[in-house]
Amino acid sequence: MTDRSLPPAPVPDAILEASLYAQDLDSARIFYGGVLGLTEVVYAEGRHVFYRVGPTILLIFNPDATAQGSTDPAMPVPGHGAHGPGHLCLSATPDQIDTWRTRLIATGHQIDADFQWPNGARSLYVRDPAENSLEFAEPRLWG
Amino acid sequence: MTDRSLPPAPVPDAILEASLYAQDLDSARIFYGGVLGLTEVVYAEGRHVFYRVGPTILLIFNPDATAQGSTDPAMPVPGHGAHGPGHLCLSATPDQIDTWRTRLIATGHQIDADFQWPNGARSLYVRDPAENSLEFAEPRLWG
Repeated sequence: MTDRSLPPAPVPDAILEASLYAQDLDSARIFYGGVLGLTEVVYAEGRHVFYRVGPTILLIFNPDATAQGSTDPAMPVPGHGAHGPGHLCLSATPDQIDTWRTRLIATGHQIDADFQWPNGARSLYVRDPAENSLEFAEPRLWG
Repeated sequence: MTDRSLPPAPVPDAILEASLYAQDLDSARIFYGGVLGLTEVVYAEGRHVFYRVGPTILLIFNPDATAQGSTDPAMPVPGHGAHGPGHLCLSATPDQIDTWRTRLIATGHQIDADFQWPNGARSLYVRDPAENSLEFAEPRLWG
């Protein structure tokens, strides 16, 4: 990257979209919309459901439906689609992590882990219905 | 979710960690650190490399190394690890998208797509070395 003809890389100020994959979108909606109470912004039956989380849109795709890209020449969205458990972490205060724990246990979810990192930040882990590892953690985890 | 004993769901203000998977972390570092110029915050050879993007940490894991959870009883991080192309989108201004396009082409990357959505927002797509579909888009895409 020492080519002097290269323009400097911009500094992105946010991740605009982060993705998880779930073949069963009905179960994903019950979990992310119902249990987690996230705000749904788009739902396309059998293909995807999207939620707003601060400056980021959380995209949950059925990988079997998105593996092939769009055939619309005006909007040729490339294909993608992963299988196996992914990972996402929602920012949370200590009080919010307590609330998430109570809410998740009350709705029948097993807590995979709940511990403090060496810097004192707490992380709580559960599985979503597609077995993705979902974490709730204090942002001070990352300084 | 009509159980009145449930505490209300907190409203997360950010995704603290978003993940992609790449078995070849050397190539991932050349791309994300070198071509994209993201700020590396953690690198563990053969296992993961992490970058800071605004309020979110972008985690890139070798899924073969993270499939098994941690055996440290003090920090029992659950296992995860997806295979196949994932998707992530970095927020960018129109000028920044022009710069990304120039920079990506100059470093030998093929542009998968570059178009405007019905609301006028532009998206540029490339593949990272692990074939993840990486997008650069204007935040007004999501209103």
